[in-house]
Amino acid sequence: MIVILRKDATEEQIQHIVDKAESLGLKAHISRGVEKTIIGFIGPEDVLRVTPLEVFPGVESVMPVLSPYRLVSREFKQDNSIIKIGEQVKVGDKKIVVMAGPCSIENYDGLLSIARKVKKAGASALRGGAFKPRTSPYDFQGLGEEGLKFLSEVGKEVGLATITEVMDPRDVDLVAKYVDIYQIGARNMQNFSLLKEVGMTKKPVVLKRGMSATIKDLLMSAEYILAKGNFDVMLCERGIRTFETATRNTLDINAIPVVKQLSHLPIIVDPSHGTGRWGLVPSASKAAVAAGCDGLIIEVHDNPEEALSDGAQSLKPENFGNLIKDLKLIATAVGREL
Amino acid sequence: MIVILRKDATEEQIQHIVDKAESLGLKAHISRGVEKTIIGFIGPEDVLRVTPLEVFPGVESVMPVLSPYRLVSREFKQDNSIIKIGEQVKVGDKKIVVMAGPCSIENYDGLLSIARKVKKAGASALRGGAFKPRTSPYDFQGLGEEGLKFLSEVGKEVGLATITEVMDPRDVDLVAKYVDIYQIGARNMQNFSLLKEVGMTKKPVVLKRGMSATIKDLLMSAEYILAKGNFDVMLCERGIRTFETATRNTLDINAIPVVKQLSHLPIIVDPSHGTGRWGLVPSASKAAVAAGCDGLIIEVHDNPEEALSDGAQSLKPENFGNLIKDLKLIATAVGREL
Amino acid sequence: MIVILRKDATEEQIQHIVDKAESLGLKAHISRGVEKTIIGFIGPEDVLRVTPLEVFPGVESVMPVLSPYRLVSREFKQDNSIIKIGEQVKVGDKKIVVMAGPCSIENYDGLLSIARKVKKAGASALRGGAFKPRTSPYDFQGLGEEGLKFLSEVGKEVGLATITEVMDPRDVDLVAKYVDIYQIGARNMQNFSLLKEVGMTKKPVVLKRGMSATIKDLLMSAEYILAKGNFDVMLCERGIRTFETATRNTLDINAIPVVKQLSHLPIIVDPSHGTGRWGLVPSASKAAVAAGCDGLIIEVHDNPEEALSDGAQSLKPENFGNLIKDLKLIATAVGREL
Amino acid sequence: MIVILRKDATEEQIQHIVDKAESLGLKAHISRGVEKTIIGFIGPEDVLRVTPLEVFPGVESVMPVLSPYRLVSREFKQDNSIIKIGEQVKVGDKKIVVMAGPCSIENYDGLLSIARKVKKAGASALRGGAFKPRTSPYDFQGLGEEGLKFLSEVGKEVGLATITEVMDPRDVDLVAKYVDIYQIGARNMQNFSLLKEVGMTKKPVVLKRGMSATIKDLLMSAEYILAKGNFDVMLCERGIRTFETATRNTLDINAIPVVKQLSHLPIIVDPSHGTGRWGLVPSASKAAVAAGCDGLIIEVHDNPEEALSDGAQSLKPENFGNLIKDLKLIATAVGREL
Repeated sequence: MIVILRKDATEEQIQHIVDKAESLGLKAHISRGVEKTIIGFIGPEDVLRVTPLEVFPGVESVMPVLSPYRLVSREFKQDNSIIKIGEQVKVGDKKIVVMAGPCSIENYDGLLSIARKVKKAGASALRGGAFKPRTSPYDFQGLGEEGLKFLSEVGKEVGLATITEVMDPRDVDLVAKYVDIYQIGARNMQNFSLLKEVGMTKKPVVLKRGMSATIKDLLMSAEYILAKGNFDVMLCERGIRTFETATRNTLDINAIPVVKQLSHLPIIVDPSHGTGRWGLVPSASKAAVAAGCDGLIIEVHDNPEEALSDGAQSLKPENFGNLIKDLKLIATAVGREL
Repeated sequence: MIVILRKDATEEQIQHIVDKAESLGLKAHISRGVEKTIIGFIGPEDVLRVTPLEVFPGVESVMPVLSPYRLVSREFKQDNSIIKIGEQVKVGDKKIVVMAGPCSIENYDGLLSIARKVKKAGASALRGGAFKPRTSPYDFQGLGEEGLKFLSEVGKEVGLATITEVMDPRDVDLVAKYVDIYQIGARNMQNFSLLKEVGMTKKPVVLKRGMSATIKDLLMSAEYILAKGNFDVMLCERGIRTFETATRNTLDINAIPVVKQLSHLPIIVDPSHGTGRWGLVPSASKAAVAAGCDGLIIEVHDNPEEALSDGAQSLKPENFGNLIKDLKLIATAVGREL
Repeated sequence: MIVILRKDATEEQIQHIVDKAESLGLKAHISRGVEKTIIGFIGPEDVLRVTPLEVFPGVESVMPVLSPYRLVSREFKQDNSIIKIGEQVKVGDKKIVVMAGPCSIENYDGLLSIARKVKKAGASALRGGAFKPRTSPYDFQGLGEEGLKFLSEVGKEVGLATITEVMDPRDVDLVAKYVDIYQIGARNMQNFSLLKEVGMTKKPVVLKRGMSATIKDLLMSAEYILAKGNFDVMLCERGIRTFETATRNTLDINAIPVVKQLSHLPIIVDPSHGTGRWGLVPSASKAAVAAGCDGLIIEVHDNPEEALSDGAQSLKPENFGNLIKDLKLIATAVGREL
Repeated sequence: MIVILRKDATEEQIQHIVDKAESLGLKAHISRGVEKTIIGFIGPEDVLRVTPLEVFPGVESVMPVLSPYRLVSREFKQDNSIIKIGEQVKVGDKKIVVMAGPCSIENYDGLLSIARKVKKAGASALRGGAFKPRTSPYDFQGLGEEGLKFLSEVGKEVGLATITEVMDPRDVDLVAKYVDIYQIGARNMQNFSLLKEVGMTKKPVVLKRGMSATIKDLLMSAEYILAKGNFDVMLCERGIRTFETATRNTLDINAIPVVKQLSHLPIIVDPSHGTGRWGLVPSASKAAVAAGCDGLIIEVHDNPEEALSDGAQSLKPENFGNLIKDLKLIATAVGREL
């Protein structure tokens, strides 16, 4: 922790700050410049971080030196984490994993049809929402447990791992009975009760970045899950909210290499929410693979015109199939598989 | 709903869209211009909103005409809603209501001391967190039920209504036993499970705007609560996330009159989070009162240096007292009381 | 300047950084912690700022200690600057100054009519654009020199100081012949050629904050003008660009006290652009006065329906008159005049 | 243009709006719904756009139907524009063009050394700044005309087209004497005087997107140049300003396909400013090529530690060379060349 003092800070004020930090077990190094005096504190920064040094008299500003996350950091674990899903799927390894399926689970037959097509095209996991976080209370809220059953049965039938969103800590056990991967949605990235709850399970989690979350915020939310004992977390870039209105969100392509530098966890990309328009999903998917992502999660629907949610950003199976072919070429070009 | 067609849209495509809308009970008005053809759909727009008309062949763009919220809208209820809290406090009336207290409840004596001072200065309600949504899992997470007890006892002792944050749908009943007002925090503004749960109670709710939520998003989240039967919702502007780093958040002062135009619900302002620095709280509070807010919620602590959370943005009681005096003058200048 | 080293930084790397800084005249203080080593450099930080220490091997991050602006800073001049415009108007003093008038100068008679009304209501200066920065090349671009003449004549006729935007460094001399105050628009806040050019004059300048400019960026742009010798700069908060679409811009009310802390220059507010809708101008103006601004610049038009630009955000003279009455009360409440 | 009326709009108000539009040559189609009445105006929308219909009594909101740009639009010209630079370079064709070089031109020998290396690696054009838009007036402002001479000589010597930023309309002729392509920087994207001036030349222009400019704003600025007769404009995505601080800017990868849909102009990408850190330049470059860009402009420096500007985001020549090899593979994978 570094504290920059005001020009007019008194010796008493400096001593007061030093006393406080030393009482917490830190050691102070004071550097007196012509214009400013700065104090560097060496030691367990965490205890000092919660102390609001900004309000101590004489302080101009405070800069943390250590990053606030630990278990998710590259310093804690230098090698990439590889998350196993069932017997066959590994996320974070050489092969880029594709998860695909409808936004909402609407009925058994529809889900089965889509599942067969995405499986054939090369997907490894089937996505589908049973509990839907909708902006409007009057919109379709999902089939609930019935949807989970459909997802589970179709996954087994077709041979795909399954992923679905969990929104409520009370549903964590229920969802675990049916699916292989929890998804925490962007709106719940800082729903800490939910994060702790999935942290106490043994099931892999895809944690989506919040619409206005910095990469640091995302890592801190992942830290909640790891701190409870569940290390099988995949981070997901799905676009952030900016002033640009031509797209639903602004896909932050830089997040991929930045996460790779800071953390050992895999990073996957959601080009469907990252663009909001199916016509833009291919370019975003290609960019994500080229930039080094470990996986993609893509919305696919047999008949987007009739989809109960997110039809505008869902690919038809044939477009999805063509996209996968294109992505394989790019994966090879960057030394990966898909 | 208005649909703008591509220049090259065919008659079949137009008919396909019209058929779809008519099957849902809407009536189409087609206007053919030199450059573009547009279709206006008259009727129950909600059923059409969930249909992704953007993906219908020939469609260039789609514009909703009706606002997606109903119960919260000024059109649904023309007069300002006045929320009663206990016997004495009314929010949304001529008097601007001040809620104040520490960020976290730390212990009984500290809370009592602050409560007495803010009461004396003119506050009507005591705030204090028992469940704290902290970015880091290693930071103080609140006293839980013990904190709720302290809040309840101190509120009764001093004669202040009480408000505390609820983060988990499982805690809604517990919190109800102790406090007068639920607070839904910014990070949980779209935690729809939680919104539904407080919507099924009879207790007033302060709903904070999410960091990247538009005013429309905020109103839609309030709609969730009203749709479940609880109309006692106070909206809270607490700053949004922008590129500016000089302050913790950017207080969106325009939100006050915009909410007043669109909704009958009261709007209160949190200048503590809206600035993040105690030295800026007075100017933000004054601006909020001048702009027409119905209430303020302000963090106050006897010793911000030792606060377990948000010390940097907490006012000392004497500064809070001086601020209230200044605010009374501005309230009078704009035809209100405080 | 503080440099935080990577955990794996070698002694050679540390020495290389120290050598570089010492060759530039700085002195290094090294603090070795358990987890990180940091180096504080004492001395002329400016020479080091342009050195990209981030790319030196072993460096994790770099933090400047000194602010990059000098002449505009509160440390350079502790007392508020008061800018004199002509004989009678002072900006930055106890009296809050109101500048008002149409967005564009459209014709002599219209301008005269508006000028008389805003003068009577209490304005001290007349605004009006002769060179208009329009998003579309096909929109009205202003009357040019003819407009400047109208503005000059009407100002003298009615007894108001005059302000107009200058967009092109080649027009600086021309504008000087006719008006009292230069306005640099938001789109040109970092048009450094223009800033230098007005910096070489003796005429007061209103410098508007760019749509995505931080407060620090705004101060750095002002520094360009002061560095050329012109200290008569008024900063102008006019709203920033965010994700919120309910208003044209998000008025950053916090910018007022932040600028006051960091700089001695006056800060004025443009509630017309800060909201984009005339119905929101009063609340924004009141908030600005309550928060401590030194002036307001407001668009007023006799017939907004027929205005050639910005009709949507222009007040009619009677509404402007009523607003001024309300603002006087708030100014008194905060110890100012208007 | 579509006008949505307030629920309480009177017949007189409706007639007043219709009269206004008809006086401008438009025809009105009125659709009366149960909840809202809407008016669609057919005809020359431009004349109506400048009329502030929002302020007409009875109007709730106004929606434009036609896009405000013409010459830059895909509707105006369906085929991709291909911009020729000198005899050999074409931008917008199958081959993706790479422009590379130092941020600032520092001296002849250094520029020559870099030029030879980027030429060898595969670049088609040499970038280098002679007039530098620096946030601080105290930072290196560029060599001016001497720098232009160096750039011109080195370009000829090595056989590379040349590109440099022009900041001041007074320098447009001077720059033309020495270089092949004008660059308009992000800070000057809405410097309309400058846009008009380069629009009156015959020289190709790279127009960079402003930090807070929407894609529509970017197209409107390009329209200024085309409207003056110069159609040789290349648009440049270089990152936008968001709340994320881990990178200098957020590269908006979606801008590539969106521009391709809306416009016939080529789109190039600046991964150096789009990330701000040299270690992130490769991933951003790969993503841009995969997403369909027509060119890249990359900062390269022999010794980034000693660069007079932007050292932190400059690649060393060997890293640049390796990147080009990687990019060739991706270009092939997406059916392009590089």
